[in-house]
Amino acid sequence: MSKLLLTISYLGTRYAGWQVQPNADTVQAELCRAADSVFGCRCLVTGCSRTDAGVHAREFLCTVGFDGTPNAVPRDRVPAALNTVLPDDISVLTCGECEDGFHPRYGIRGKEYVYLLHNSHIRDPFLEGRAYRFPSPLDADAMAECARELIGYHDFAAFMAAGSKIEDTRRTVFDFTVTREGDLVSFTVSADGFLYNMVRIMVGTLIDAGLGKKNAGDLRRILEEGDRANAGPTVPACGLYLNRILKGDDTP
Amino acid sequence: MSKLLLTISYLGTRYAGWQVQPNADTVQAELCRAADSVFGCRCLVTGCSRTDAGVHAREFLCTVGFDGTPNAVPRDRVPAALNTVLPDDISVLTCGECEDGFHPRYGIRGKEYVYLLHNSHIRDPFLEGRAYRFPSPLDADAMAECARELIGYHDFAAFMAAGSKIEDTRRTVFDFTVTREGDLVSFTVSADGFLYNMVRIMVGTLIDAGLGKKNAGDLRRILEEGDRANAGPTVPACGLYLNRILKGDDTP
Repeated sequence: MSKLLLTISYLGTRYAGWQVQPNADTVQAELCRAADSVFGCRCLVTGCSRTDAGVHAREFLCTVGFDGTPNAVPRDRVPAALNTVLPDDISVLTCGECEDGFHPRYGIRGKEYVYLLHNSHIRDPFLEGRAYRFPSPLDADAMAECARELIGYHDFAAFMAAGSKIEDTRRTVFDFTVTREGDLVSFTVSADGFLYNMVRIMVGTLIDAGLGKKNAGDLRRILEEGDRANAGPTVPACGLYLNRILKGDDTP
Repeated sequence: MSKLLLTISYLGTRYAGWQVQPNADTVQAELCRAADSVFGCRCLVTGCSRTDAGVHAREFLCTVGFDGTPNAVPRDRVPAALNTVLPDDISVLTCGECEDGFHPRYGIRGKEYVYLLHNSHIRDPFLEGRAYRFPSPLDADAMAECARELIGYHDFAAFMAAGSKIEDTRRTVFDFTVTREGDLVSFTVSADGFLYNMVRIMVGTLIDAGLGKKNAGDLRRILEEGDRANAGPTVPACGLYLNRILKGDDTP
Protein backbone atom coordinates (compact mmCIF):
# COMPACT_ATOMS: atom_id res chain seq x y z
CA MET A 1 0.00 0.00 0.00
CA SER A 2 1.12 3.52 -0.68
CA LYS A 3 1.56 6.12 2.06
CA LEU A 4 -0.79 8.87 3.17
CA LEU A 5 0.29 12.46 2.53
CA LEU A 6 -1.04 14.91 5.10
CA THR A 7 -0.95 18.68 5.30
CA ILE A 8 -1.13 19.77 8.89
CA SER A 9 -1.03 23.01 10.86
CA TYR A 10 0.16 23.57 14.41
CA LEU A 11 0.76 26.16 17.06
CA GLY A 12 4.27 25.28 18.23
CA THR A 13 4.22 27.02 21.62
CA ARG A 14 3.79 23.87 23.75
CA TYR A 15 6.14 21.68 21.75
CA ALA A 16 9.85 20.93 21.74
CA GLY A 17 9.68 21.15 17.95
CA TRP A 18 8.62 18.67 15.29
CA GLN A 19 10.95 15.74 15.83
CA VAL A 20 10.40 12.97 18.38
CA GLN A 21 12.79 13.15 21.29
CA PRO A 22 12.95 11.56 24.72
CA ASN A 23 11.21 13.30 27.63
CA ALA A 24 9.70 16.11 25.58
CA ASP A 25 6.39 16.62 23.84
CA THR A 26 6.77 17.00 20.07
CA VAL A 27 4.39 17.38 17.13
CA GLN A 28 5.68 14.20 15.47
CA ALA A 29 5.07 12.22 18.67
CA GLU A 30 1.49 13.52 18.87
CA LEU A 31 0.86 12.58 15.24
CA CYS A 32 2.35 9.11 15.69
CA ARG A 33 0.12 8.49 18.71
CA ALA A 34 -2.96 9.77 16.87
CA ALA A 35 -2.22 7.72 13.72
CA ASP A 36 -1.51 4.54 15.72
CA SER A 37 -4.87 4.96 17.42
CA VAL A 38 -6.90 5.75 14.29
CA PHE A 39 -5.30 3.11 12.04
CA GLY A 40 -4.84 0.43 14.69
CA CYS A 41 -1.28 -0.42 13.69
CA ARG A 42 2.16 1.07 14.13
CA CYS A 43 2.50 4.15 11.92
CA LEU A 44 5.65 5.84 10.61
CA VAL A 45 5.32 9.60 10.35
CA THR A 46 7.89 11.58 8.32
CA GLY A 47 7.94 15.37 8.11
CA CYS A 48 9.09 17.96 5.56
CA SER A 49 11.16 19.88 8.11
CA ARG A 50 12.43 19.69 11.67
CA THR A 51 10.93 22.86 13.10
CA ASP A 52 12.50 24.04 16.37
CA ALA A 53 10.85 24.35 19.75
CA GLY A 54 8.18 27.07 19.70
CA VAL A 55 8.10 27.40 15.89
CA HIS A 56 4.64 27.26 14.28
CA ALA A 57 3.39 25.81 10.99
CA ARG A 58 0.46 27.00 8.90
CA GLU A 59 1.18 24.35 6.28
CA PHE A 60 3.43 21.39 7.00
CA LEU A 61 3.69 18.27 4.88
CA CYS A 62 4.14 14.78 6.32
CA THR A 63 3.67 11.20 5.24
CA VAL A 64 2.16 8.33 7.21
CA GLY A 65 3.39 4.83 6.41
CA PHE A 66 2.06 1.66 7.99
CA ASP A 67 3.95 -1.14 9.71
CA GLY A 68 1.03 -3.58 9.58
CA THR A 69 -2.47 -3.52 8.15
CA PRO A 70 -4.26 -0.24 8.89
CA ASN A 71 -7.96 0.02 9.66
CA ALA A 72 -9.91 1.02 6.54
CA VAL A 73 -10.64 4.74 6.91
CA PRO A 74 -12.03 6.55 3.84
CA ARG A 75 -9.46 9.13 2.71
CA ASP A 76 -11.81 12.08 3.13
CA ARG A 77 -12.56 11.06 6.72
CA VAL A 78 -8.89 10.85 7.78
CA PRO A 79 -8.49 14.54 8.79
CA ALA A 80 -11.57 14.51 11.05
CA ALA A 81 -10.62 11.09 12.50
CA LEU A 82 -7.10 12.25 13.38
CA ASN A 83 -8.32 15.64 14.64
CA THR A 84 -10.63 14.06 17.20
CA VAL A 85 -7.64 12.39 18.88
CA LEU A 86 -5.06 15.15 18.32
CA PRO A 87 -4.69 18.03 20.80
CA ASP A 88 -6.36 21.35 19.86
CA ASP A 89 -3.08 22.99 18.83
CA ILE A 90 -2.48 20.52 15.97
CA SER A 91 -4.85 20.04 13.04
CA VAL A 92 -4.82 17.81 9.96
CA LEU A 93 -6.06 19.94 7.05
CA THR A 94 -6.01 17.52 4.11
CA CYS A 95 -5.18 13.90 3.34
CA GLY A 96 -3.94 12.58 0.01
CA GLU A 97 -1.82 9.66 -1.10
CA CYS A 98 1.75 9.29 -2.38
CA GLU A 99 4.20 6.69 -3.60
CA ASP A 100 6.14 4.74 -0.97
CA GLY A 101 9.34 6.37 -2.18
CA PHE A 102 8.14 9.94 -1.70
CA HIS A 103 9.94 11.89 1.03
CA PRO A 104 8.24 15.14 2.10
CA ARG A 105 11.62 16.78 2.69
CA TYR A 106 13.16 16.08 -0.70
CA GLY A 107 10.06 15.70 -2.89
CA ILE A 108 9.19 19.39 -2.73
CA ARG A 109 10.52 22.45 -4.54
CA GLY A 110 10.96 24.49 -1.41
CA LYS A 111 9.29 26.17 1.55
CA GLU A 112 8.09 29.60 2.52
CA TYR A 113 8.56 30.92 6.05
CA VAL A 114 6.95 33.99 7.60
CA TYR A 115 8.45 35.76 10.60
CA LEU A 116 6.08 38.04 12.53
CA LEU A 117 7.50 40.94 14.50
CA HIS A 118 5.41 43.19 16.72
CA ASN A 119 7.15 46.55 16.59
CA SER A 120 5.78 48.12 19.77
CA HIS A 121 6.82 49.01 23.30
CA ILE A 122 3.42 47.80 24.53
CA ARG A 123 2.55 44.10 24.74
CA ASP A 124 -0.42 42.83 22.71
CA PRO A 125 -1.98 39.88 24.61
CA PHE A 126 -3.24 38.39 21.33
CA LEU A 127 0.28 38.24 19.86
CA GLU A 128 2.05 36.71 22.87
CA GLY A 129 3.87 33.57 21.70
CA ARG A 130 2.82 34.35 18.12
CA ALA A 131 5.04 37.31 17.24
CA TYR A 132 8.38 38.61 18.53
CA ARG A 133 7.94 41.97 20.22
CA PHE A 134 10.68 44.47 19.41
CA PRO A 135 10.25 47.92 21.00
CA SER A 136 12.64 50.17 19.01
CA PRO A 137 11.20 51.68 15.81
CA LEU A 138 12.26 49.79 12.68
CA ASP A 139 12.47 51.13 9.13
CA ALA A 140 10.61 48.51 7.09
CA ASP A 141 11.74 50.00 3.76
CA ALA A 142 15.41 49.71 4.77
CA MET A 143 14.82 46.11 5.84
CA ALA A 144 13.02 45.33 2.56
CA GLU A 145 15.92 46.80 0.58
CA CYS A 146 18.47 44.66 2.46
CA ALA A 147 16.24 41.56 2.18
CA ARG A 148 16.50 41.85 -1.62
CA GLU A 149 20.27 41.32 -1.34
CA LEU A 150 19.57 37.83 0.02
CA ILE A 151 17.49 36.74 -2.98
CA GLY A 152 19.26 34.38 -5.38
CA TYR A 153 21.78 31.53 -5.27
CA HIS A 154 24.30 32.30 -2.51
CA ASP A 155 26.49 30.67 0.08
CA PHE A 156 24.51 31.31 3.28
CA ALA A 157 27.25 30.11 5.68
CA ALA A 158 27.06 33.42 7.59
CA PHE A 159 23.39 32.72 8.28
CA MET A 160 23.80 29.26 9.80
CA ALA A 161 23.94 28.54 13.54
CA ALA A 162 27.49 27.82 14.72
CA GLY A 163 28.09 24.10 15.18
CA SER A 164 26.02 22.91 12.22
CA LYS A 165 27.70 20.16 10.28
CA ILE A 166 26.13 20.84 6.87
CA GLU A 167 28.89 20.95 4.22
CA ASP A 168 27.14 22.58 1.30
CA THR A 169 25.80 25.86 2.61
CA ARG A 170 24.63 27.17 -0.78
CA ARG A 171 20.90 27.66 -1.22
CA THR A 172 18.59 29.56 -3.56
CA VAL A 173 16.32 32.16 -1.97
CA PHE A 174 13.41 32.64 -4.38
CA ASP A 175 11.93 35.72 -2.75
CA PHE A 176 12.25 37.78 0.43
CA THR A 177 9.82 40.58 1.27
CA VAL A 178 9.37 42.77 4.34
CA THR A 179 6.02 44.50 4.83
CA ARG A 180 4.48 46.53 7.62
CA GLU A 181 0.82 46.76 8.62
CA GLY A 182 0.51 49.04 11.63
CA ASP A 183 2.76 47.64 14.37
CA LEU A 184 3.09 44.27 12.68
CA VAL A 185 6.11 43.60 10.45
CA SER A 186 6.06 40.44 8.30
CA PHE A 187 9.23 38.91 6.83
CA THR A 188 8.33 36.41 4.10
CA VAL A 189 11.09 34.28 2.63
CA SER A 190 10.97 31.29 0.27
CA ALA A 191 13.90 29.07 -0.71
CA ASP A 192 14.77 25.62 -1.99
CA GLY A 193 16.14 24.83 1.45
CA PHE A 194 17.15 26.46 4.71
CA LEU A 195 20.21 26.00 6.91
CA TYR A 196 19.86 25.60 10.66
CA ASN A 197 18.39 28.84 12.12
CA MET A 198 18.82 30.54 8.74
CA VAL A 199 15.53 32.47 8.79
CA ARG A 200 15.97 33.58 12.39
CA ILE A 201 19.52 34.83 11.72
CA MET A 202 18.50 36.58 8.50
CA VAL A 203 15.67 38.36 10.34
CA GLY A 204 18.05 39.32 13.17
CA THR A 205 20.40 40.80 10.58
CA LEU A 206 17.58 42.70 8.86
CA ILE A 207 16.56 44.15 12.24
CA ASP A 208 20.06 45.68 12.41
CA ALA A 209 19.28 47.20 9.00
CA GLY A 210 15.93 48.47 10.29
CA LEU A 211 17.80 50.21 13.11
CA GLY A 212 20.18 51.84 10.63
CA LYS A 213 23.16 49.75 11.74
CA LYS A 214 23.57 47.84 8.47
CA ASN A 215 22.93 48.65 4.80
CA ALA A 216 22.69 46.74 1.52
CA GLY A 217 26.48 46.83 1.06
CA ASP A 218 26.93 45.24 4.50
CA LEU A 219 24.52 42.49 3.56
CA ARG A 220 26.52 41.72 0.39
CA ARG A 221 29.76 41.62 2.43
CA ILE A 222 28.22 39.34 5.09
CA LEU A 223 27.19 36.90 2.34
CA GLU A 224 30.64 37.04 0.70
CA GLU A 225 32.70 36.61 3.86
CA GLY A 226 30.51 33.76 5.14
CA ASP A 227 31.31 34.46 8.78
CA ARG A 228 28.44 33.93 11.28
CA ALA A 229 29.99 36.63 13.49
CA ASN A 230 29.18 39.34 10.92
CA ALA A 231 25.47 38.55 10.83
CA GLY A 232 22.90 39.70 13.40
CA PRO A 233 21.46 37.84 16.40
CA THR A 234 19.14 34.83 16.16
CA VAL A 235 15.63 36.11 16.85
CA PRO A 236 13.25 34.06 19.08
CA ALA A 237 11.33 31.06 17.73
CA CYS A 238 7.87 32.37 18.69
CA GLY A 239 7.61 34.64 15.60
CA LEU A 240 8.48 31.94 13.06
CA TYR A 241 5.89 30.16 10.88
CA LEU A 242 6.44 27.51 8.24
CA ASN A 243 3.85 29.14 6.00
CA ARG A 244 3.66 27.22 2.74
CA ILE A 245 5.10 24.26 0.90
CA LEU A 246 6.29 25.05 -2.62
CA LYS A 247 5.40 22.03 -4.69
CA GLY A 248 7.34 20.82 -7.68
CA ASP A 249 5.97 19.25 -10.82
CA ASP A 250 6.26 15.77 -9.34
CA THR A 251 4.91 16.51 -5.85
CA PRO A 252 1.69 14.53 -5.25
CA MET B 1 -6.35 63.44 43.57
CA SER B 2 -8.21 62.40 40.46
CA LYS B 3 -8.33 58.82 39.21
CA LEU B 4 -6.32 57.14 36.48
CA LEU B 5 -8.16 56.09 33.32
CA LEU B 6 -6.65 53.02 31.64
CA THR B 7 -7.37 51.32 28.36
CA ILE B 8 -6.41 47.68 28.57
CA SER B 9 -6.57 44.60 26.37
CA TYR B 10 -6.83 40.97 27.42
CA LEU B 11 -7.15 37.43 26.17
CA GLY B 12 -10.00 36.12 28.32
CA THR B 13 -9.34 32.39 27.92
CA ARG B 14 -7.80 31.81 31.37
CA TYR B 15 -10.16 34.07 33.30
CA ALA B 16 -13.54 33.69 34.98
CA GLY B 17 -14.45 37.05 33.42
CA TRP B 18 -13.71 40.62 34.44
CA GLN B 19 -15.23 40.89 37.89
CA VAL B 20 -13.52 39.81 41.10
CA GLN B 21 -15.01 36.69 42.60
CA PRO B 22 -13.94 34.22 45.26
CA ASN B 23 -11.81 31.21 44.23
CA ALA B 24 -11.45 32.22 40.59
CA ASP B 25 -8.91 34.17 38.62
CA THR B 26 -10.37 37.32 37.09
CA VAL B 27 -8.98 40.25 35.08
CA GLN B 28 -10.07 42.78 37.70
CA ALA B 29 -8.27 40.81 40.43
CA GLU B 30 -5.06 40.76 38.35
CA LEU B 31 -5.28 44.51 37.76
CA CYS B 32 -5.93 45.24 41.46
CA ARG B 33 -2.90 43.16 42.44
CA ALA B 34 -0.71 44.87 39.82
CA ALA B 35 -1.89 48.39 40.76
CA ASP B 36 -1.46 47.73 44.51
CA SER B 37 2.10 46.65 43.80
CA VAL B 38 3.04 49.51 41.45
CA PHE B 39 1.39 52.30 43.49
CA GLY B 40 2.16 50.91 46.94
CA CYS B 41 -1.32 51.51 48.32
CA ARG B 42 -4.72 49.89 48.07
CA CYS B 43 -6.20 50.59 44.63
CA LEU B 44 -9.84 50.50 43.53
CA VAL B 45 -10.27 49.28 39.96
CA THR B 46 -13.62 49.85 38.19
CA GLY B 47 -14.40 48.52 34.70
CA CYS B 48 -16.65 49.57 31.83
CA SER B 49 -18.28 46.13 31.56
CA ARG B 50 -18.46 42.77 33.28
CA THR B 51 -17.24 40.49 30.54
CA ASP B 52 -18.05 36.80 31.04
CA ALA B 53 -15.63 33.92 31.48
CA GLY B 54 -13.62 33.37 28.30
CA VAL B 55 -14.63 36.67 26.65
CA HIS B 56 -11.77 38.81 25.27
CA ALA B 57 -11.23 42.56 25.11
CA ARG B 58 -9.24 44.49 22.52
CA GLU B 59 -10.14 47.79 24.18
CA PHE B 60 -11.54 47.92 27.70
CA LEU B 61 -11.79 51.03 29.85
CA CYS B 62 -11.19 51.04 33.59
CA THR B 63 -10.39 53.54 36.31
CA VAL B 64 -7.90 53.19 39.16
CA GLY B 65 -8.65 55.10 42.36
CA PHE B 66 -6.40 55.18 45.40
CA ASP B 67 -7.21 54.41 49.03
CA GLY B 68 -4.04 56.03 50.36
CA THR B 69 -1.14 57.93 48.85
CA PRO B 70 0.17 56.30 45.69
CA ASN B 71 3.82 56.17 44.71
CA ALA B 72 4.63 58.92 42.22
CA VAL B 73 4.75 57.22 38.79
CA PRO B 74 4.90 59.51 35.72
CA ARG B 75 1.70 59.00 33.74
CA ASP B 76 3.49 57.86 30.58
CA ARG B 77 5.38 55.19 32.55
CA VAL B 78 2.24 53.68 34.09
CA PRO B 79 1.45 51.22 31.23
CA ALA B 80 4.99 49.75 31.21
CA ALA B 81 5.10 49.65 35.05
CA LEU B 82 1.80 47.75 35.26
CA ASN B 83 2.68 45.47 32.33
CA THR B 84 5.86 44.22 34.00
CA VAL B 85 3.78 42.85 36.89
CA LEU B 86 0.69 41.78 34.93
CA PRO B 87 0.50 38.34 33.29
CA ASP B 88 1.20 38.15 29.54
CA ASP B 89 -2.47 37.82 28.59
CA ILE B 90 -3.36 41.27 29.98
CA SER B 91 -1.83 44.53 28.76
CA VAL B 92 -2.29 48.18 29.71
CA LEU B 93 -2.30 50.15 26.45
CA THR B 94 -2.71 53.76 27.61
CA CYS B 95 -3.04 55.77 30.82
CA GLY B 96 -4.87 59.08 31.21
CA GLU B 97 -6.66 60.85 34.01
CA CYS B 98 -10.31 61.47 34.87
CA GLU B 99 -12.51 63.19 37.45
CA ASP B 100 -13.25 61.25 40.63
CA GLY B 101 -16.91 61.12 39.62
CA PHE B 102 -16.28 59.46 36.24
CA HIS B 103 -17.58 55.89 35.94
CA PRO B 104 -16.26 53.94 32.92
CA ARG B 105 -19.60 52.14 32.60
CA TYR B 106 -21.85 55.20 32.45
CA GLY B 107 -19.46 57.85 31.18
CA ILE B 108 -19.24 56.39 27.67
CA ARG B 109 -21.56 56.56 24.66
CA GLY B 110 -21.49 52.84 24.05
CA LYS B 111 -19.42 49.84 23.11
CA GLU B 112 -18.65 47.79 20.04
CA TYR B 113 -18.39 44.02 20.20
CA VAL B 114 -17.00 41.68 17.55
CA TYR B 115 -17.93 38.01 17.41
CA LEU B 116 -15.58 35.79 15.39
CA LEU B 117 -16.91 32.59 13.86
CA HIS B 118 -14.73 30.07 12.03
CA ASN B 119 -17.01 28.52 9.45
CA SER B 120 -15.16 25.28 8.76
CA HIS B 121 -15.34 21.57 9.47
CA ILE B 122 -11.57 21.57 10.05
CA ARG B 123 -10.01 23.02 13.21
CA ASP B 124 -7.52 25.90 12.85
CA PRO B 125 -5.00 25.65 15.74
CA PHE B 126 -4.44 29.42 15.59
CA LEU B 127 -8.14 30.16 16.18
CA GLU B 128 -8.71 27.75 19.07
CA GLY B 129 -10.20 29.74 21.98
CA ARG B 130 -10.32 32.83 19.75
CA ALA B 131 -13.18 32.04 17.40
CA TYR B 132 -16.22 29.76 17.58
CA ARG B 133 -15.95 26.97 15.03
CA PHE B 134 -19.21 26.20 13.25
CA PRO B 135 -19.00 23.46 10.59
CA SER B 136 -22.21 23.90 8.54
CA PRO B 137 -21.99 26.43 5.67
CA LEU B 138 -23.50 29.81 6.59
CA ASP B 139 -24.92 32.41 4.20
CA ALA B 140 -23.23 35.65 5.34
CA ASP B 141 -25.48 37.83 3.15
CA ALA B 142 -28.61 36.38 4.76
CA MET B 143 -27.10 36.98 8.22
CA ALA B 144 -26.16 40.56 7.28
CA GLU B 145 -29.71 41.23 6.08
CA CYS B 146 -31.21 39.94 9.33
CA ALA B 147 -28.62 41.84 11.40
CA ARG B 148 -29.94 45.08 9.90
CA GLU B 149 -33.34 44.37 11.51
CA LEU B 150 -31.67 44.67 14.91
CA ILE B 151 -30.33 48.18 14.27
CA GLY B 152 -32.21 50.96 16.08
CA TYR B 153 -34.07 51.55 19.34
CA HIS B 154 -35.82 48.31 20.28
CA ASP B 155 -36.89 46.24 23.24
CA PHE B 156 -34.28 43.46 23.24
CA ALA B 157 -35.99 41.30 25.90
CA ALA B 158 -35.90 38.30 23.53
CA PHE B 159 -32.12 38.61 23.40
CA MET B 160 -31.46 38.55 27.14
CA ALA B 161 -30.46 35.46 29.12
CA ALA B 162 -33.36 34.06 31.15
CA GLY B 163 -33.16 35.03 34.82
CA SER B 164 -31.75 38.54 34.28
CA LYS B 165 -33.37 41.09 36.57
CA ILE B 166 -32.92 44.16 34.35
CA GLU B 167 -36.25 45.99 34.08
CA ASP B 168 -35.71 48.28 31.11
CA THR B 169 -34.68 46.02 28.26
CA ARG B 170 -34.72 48.74 25.61
CA ARG B 171 -31.43 49.63 23.98
CA THR B 172 -30.22 51.38 20.84
CA VAL B 173 -28.11 49.32 18.44
CA PHE B 174 -26.10 51.82 16.37
CA ASP B 175 -24.83 49.38 13.77
CA PHE B 176 -24.65 45.65 13.11
CA THR B 177 -22.64 44.20 10.21
CA VAL B 178 -21.76 40.65 9.20
CA THR B 179 -18.80 40.11 6.89
CA ARG B 180 -16.94 37.05 5.63
CA GLU B 181 -13.24 36.74 4.77
CA GLY B 182 -12.54 33.18 3.67
CA ASP B 183 -13.68 30.88 6.50
CA LEU B 184 -13.84 33.69 9.04
CA VAL B 185 -17.17 35.42 9.68
CA SER B 186 -17.15 38.63 11.76
CA PHE B 187 -20.25 39.98 13.49
CA THR B 188 -19.69 43.61 14.54
CA VAL B 189 -22.33 45.28 16.70
CA SER B 190 -22.29 48.63 18.50
CA ALA B 191 -24.93 49.86 20.97
CA ASP B 192 -25.46 52.24 23.87
CA GLY B 193 -25.68 49.22 26.14
CA PHE B 194 -26.04 45.45 26.08
CA LEU B 195 -28.25 43.10 28.10
CA TYR B 196 -26.82 39.96 29.65
CA ASN B 197 -25.64 37.60 26.85
CA MET B 198 -27.27 39.89 24.27
CA VAL B 199 -24.49 39.67 21.67
CA ARG B 200 -24.14 35.91 22.04
CA ILE B 201 -27.92 35.36 21.65
CA MET B 202 -28.12 37.76 18.68
CA VAL B 203 -25.29 35.88 16.94
CA GLY B 204 -26.94 32.53 17.73
CA THR B 205 -30.14 33.84 16.13
CA LEU B 206 -28.28 35.13 13.06
CA ILE B 207 -26.66 31.70 12.66
CA ASP B 208 -30.19 30.30 12.29
CA ALA B 209 -30.67 32.91 9.53
CA GLY B 210 -27.37 31.83 7.93
CA LEU B 211 -28.68 28.26 7.86
CA GLY B 212 -31.91 29.39 6.16
CA LYS B 213 -34.06 28.70 9.26
CA LYS B 214 -34.99 32.34 9.96
CA ASN B 215 -35.54 35.42 7.77
CA ALA B 216 -35.83 39.18 8.29
CA GLY B 217 -39.55 38.87 9.09
CA ASP B 218 -38.76 36.33 11.82
CA LEU B 219 -36.24 38.74 13.33
CA ARG B 220 -38.87 41.49 13.47
CA ARG B 221 -41.34 39.13 15.14
CA ILE B 222 -38.75 37.95 17.68
CA LEU B 223 -38.09 41.59 18.64
CA GLU B 224 -41.82 42.38 18.89
CA GLU B 225 -42.82 39.33 20.93
CA GLY B 226 -39.89 39.72 23.33
CA ASP B 227 -39.76 36.03 24.17
CA ARG B 228 -36.31 34.51 24.72
CA ALA B 229 -37.64 31.15 23.51
CA ASN B 230 -38.08 32.53 19.96
CA ALA B 231 -34.44 33.60 19.62
CA GLY B 232 -31.53 31.30 18.78
CA PRO B 233 -29.02 29.61 21.08
CA THR B 234 -26.35 31.46 23.08
CA VAL B 235 -23.07 30.95 21.20
CA PRO B 236 -19.85 30.21 23.18
CA ALA B 237 -17.86 32.96 24.88
CA CYS B 238 -14.56 32.21 23.09
CA GLY B 239 -15.56 34.12 19.91
CA LEU B 240 -16.59 37.33 21.71
CA TYR B 241 -14.40 40.46 21.84
CA LEU B 242 -15.15 43.80 23.45
CA ASN B 243 -13.63 45.61 20.51
CA ARG B 244 -13.97 49.34 21.05
CA ILE B 245 -15.29 51.94 23.46
CA LEU B 246 -17.51 54.58 21.86
CA LYS B 247 -16.66 57.78 23.61
CA GLY B 248 -19.10 60.62 24.20
CA ASP B 249 -18.36 64.31 24.17
CA ASP B 250 -17.59 64.30 27.89
CA THR B 251 -15.49 61.11 28.04
CA PRO B 252 -11.95 61.95 29.18
